[in-house]
Amino acid sequence: MKMQQSPGTRDFLPEQQILRQEIISTLRTYFERFGFSPLDTPGIERFEVLASKYAGGSEILKETFNFKDQGKRHLALRYDLTVPLARVLAMNKDIRLPFKRYHIDKVWRDGPVEAGRYREFMQCDVDAVGSRSMAVEAEIIQLIQKVFSQLGLECKVKVNNRKVLNGILRKCGVNSEKHDETLIALDKLAKTGRANVEKELKRAGMSAGQVKELFGLLETGSSEQSLSRLDQNIDNEEGGQGAEELRQLFSLLSSRDNVELDFSLARGLNYYTGTIIETFLQQSSVTSSVCAGGRYDKMIGDFIGAGAGYPACGVSFGLDRIYDALLEKRKISAKTMVQVFVIPIQSLDKCLAIAGRLRENGINTDVDVMERSISKNLSFAHQQGIPFALMLGPRETEEGKVKLRNMKTGKEEVLTIEQAIARIKDEL
Amino acid sequence: MKMQQSPGTRDFLPEQQILRQEIISTLRTYFERFGFSPLDTPGIERFEVLASKYAGGSEILKETFNFKDQGKRHLALRYDLTVPLARVLAMNKDIRLPFKRYHIDKVWRDGPVEAGRYREFMQCDVDAVGSRSMAVEAEIIQLIQKVFSQLGLECKVKVNNRKVLNGILRKCGVNSEKHDETLIALDKLAKTGRANVEKELKRAGMSAGQVKELFGLLETGSSEQSLSRLDQNIDNEEGGQGAEELRQLFSLLSSRDNVELDFSLARGLNYYTGTIIETFLQQSSVTSSVCAGGRYDKMIGDFIGAGAGYPACGVSFGLDRIYDALLEKRKISAKTMVQVFVIPIQSLDKCLAIAGRLRENGINTDVDVMERSISKNLSFAHQQGIPFALMLGPRETEEGKVKLRNMKTGKEEVLTIEQAIARIKDEL
Repeated sequence: MKMQQSPGTRDFLPEQQILRQEIISTLRTYFERFGFSPLDTPGIERFEVLASKYAGGSEILKETFNFKDQGKRHLALRYDLTVPLARVLAMNKDIRLPFKRYHIDKVWRDGPVEAGRYREFMQCDVDAVGSRSMAVEAEIIQLIQKVFSQLGLECKVKVNNRKVLNGILRKCGVNSEKHDETLIALDKLAKTGRANVEKELKRAGMSAGQVKELFGLLETGSSEQSLSRLDQNIDNEEGGQGAEELRQLFSLLSSRDNVELDFSLARGLNYYTGTIIETFLQQSSVTSSVCAGGRYDKMIGDFIGAGAGYPACGVSFGLDRIYDALLEKRKISAKTMVQVFVIPIQSLDKCLAIAGRLRENGINTDVDVMERSISKNLSFAHQQGIPFALMLGPRETEEGKVKLRNMKTGKEEVLTIEQAIARIKDEL
Repeated sequence: MKMQQSPGTRDFLPEQQILRQEIISTLRTYFERFGFSPLDTPGIERFEVLASKYAGGSEILKETFNFKDQGKRHLALRYDLTVPLARVLAMNKDIRLPFKRYHIDKVWRDGPVEAGRYREFMQCDVDAVGSRSMAVEAEIIQLIQKVFSQLGLECKVKVNNRKVLNGILRKCGVNSEKHDETLIALDKLAKTGRANVEKELKRAGMSAGQVKELFGLLETGSSEQSLSRLDQNIDNEEGGQGAEELRQLFSLLSSRDNVELDFSLARGLNYYTGTIIETFLQQSSVTSSVCAGGRYDKMIGDFIGAGAGYPACGVSFGLDRIYDALLEKRKISAKTMVQVFVIPIQSLDKCLAIAGRLRENGINTDVDVMERSISKNLSFAHQQGIPFALMLGPRETEEGKVKLRNMKTGKEEVLTIEQAIARIKDEL
């Protein structure tokens, strides 16, 4: 038997999972702070729901794990959290709008097994369904700023609007059937550079003149200037509407720190209808987007068959990339949640009672249950990075005291249990 | 297209998920308080790992969702969190023991679709691997007490030991090949009653005299008395060893509140080797066990092929049942995490800025983005159970103030934003 994980999946030992949970907990706190409530849906869905033509599309469907249950029903593992959201709204027509939900859980894709590509990963999504107001986008951008500031990561939020892009493409004479293809090419700009994208655009049928005009229009400076210039240059309705939406959005931001308009921001997915958002870290070796999304006013309504009643906007935070960036910054990650390790020299029952006292005071406490020597226990506590060891030998027991060792400084003190608790809380 | 969940799976709307997350958060806090650290493993495993003969067994394997990936590998959805724990230990021989991990995540079973039986559910497991000390059991029992006390649910922790049960069965002359069958029959005692179990035991070949002797020996009073009586009645080594383990365990409990020895407690799973634990709620209509487990000193070592090096003990908390019990007690469940709903009468940008101030003060805040009337917004806030509404009309804006409405009492006050924050924090 191969004692291995399934290919493309990962275990997260405490050393990784403690930091992952810290990130998830920060996301959850701020999602709730901004008025989003938690939703949970099953990992398994009916295949036909995921295969709906308004769902993820044929490419993603090829990478969908699917199987028959005992009753020969065709089921599948979800590939995202957006289709399940649409299904929930379809099944619960009495949900009051706007429906602001967050959802943090695993999704699966049966893609090729290669380095850095995972077949099981966490999605951390916030979406607001029901409103066309640019206040939704403004709130989401402030949420992104707060999350990264709380995590101690400097970020830049790039913003654009699909209507503006469509307007620019139309202005350059790109046929609307070619828009999707052109946007997919443009989406690679940050990754592959302008020269490669130009080549691709020409292969797609654009002339050198059109490409030059396009890149001229995509140049972006300050938001006010760029939007005025856009109004002058773009004469079609869609482009004008996109510019007006961006103007509204910028006027609603109470902080524009690190928010940047970028007309060249495309995003590959074709279901976006308005604002698009992509967030990058600064001063980090993580250069890919760490939080992205946008407005998709048609997808849920089409999926449900309810027409235009479900405008939506949302973003997804990339747990793996945020983890990499935080680990790079902090250099070390905790191996354990334990704050005090109690080493019984005698009277295990007294030690368990003392551990109980520490825990009542909110201190994460563990007790040696291996009957190891003091030195082996201290070495274990050191290797695990536990900040304090608490020892209870015959002399301490007699005096009603404990010996507390700060594992970092090596300083040992004989204290009453109350004093020890105060000291631990003080130095943690 | 059937717009439905996959059969036997459930959505949890905010109304349910908020309470579920509160329970999970309490479990996590106390798991960490007691020295357990988080582990995460994939939902998908190699089928052959789950099918190992030392894993969950042939019955559970029949209910395992399994499928081929694009590379024709035979994969499956995990049916528990214990086999993945064993696999992690097999793949990471350098993990220092004791390894105390907790794991809260979904598992799947392709069982028959029937009411109250789910094919996807959360497991909330704590396990300590590496120690044979009864201190592990003592700590786990104190953990159970703390968790339920924190949740405001009164519980009774029933404790027994498989060695004692085996000793009693041997004393009654039950052939050791019949032990498993007998224990499975006994496990139904609480559910089906003594008469039915007696019938089943007789069908399994026990005489009326044996059954009578068995039930006599299973009677349990106070732990000291019952253990002494056991020493007198049981003359085989295994029974004696079990009694000694129970005695040690009881001597290590700093609080025996709600802990009860019960020789008739059997638990169906055959991998338990020592202590068995089952927790029931008192004064609740939830009568099934809400937390159960025990010691399994052989399973992980056998699975890894490492012999006796991996003694283990753990319990699993039942999220669904705890949820039912809490909901029954509280009667209402929150529909939203929002604490303040900001209603813009004019100047949306000012409202977003005020929402930002509230959030900086740790208050979960949402803003109307539907441009509804004041009365519709108040009705929405009321329907959602949001405790406060904050309104910003022309007069308030002019005076630099806000109007705060306590949605429960209906009381409205015009306050500065600082006063409003203080009032909200005070009354929440």
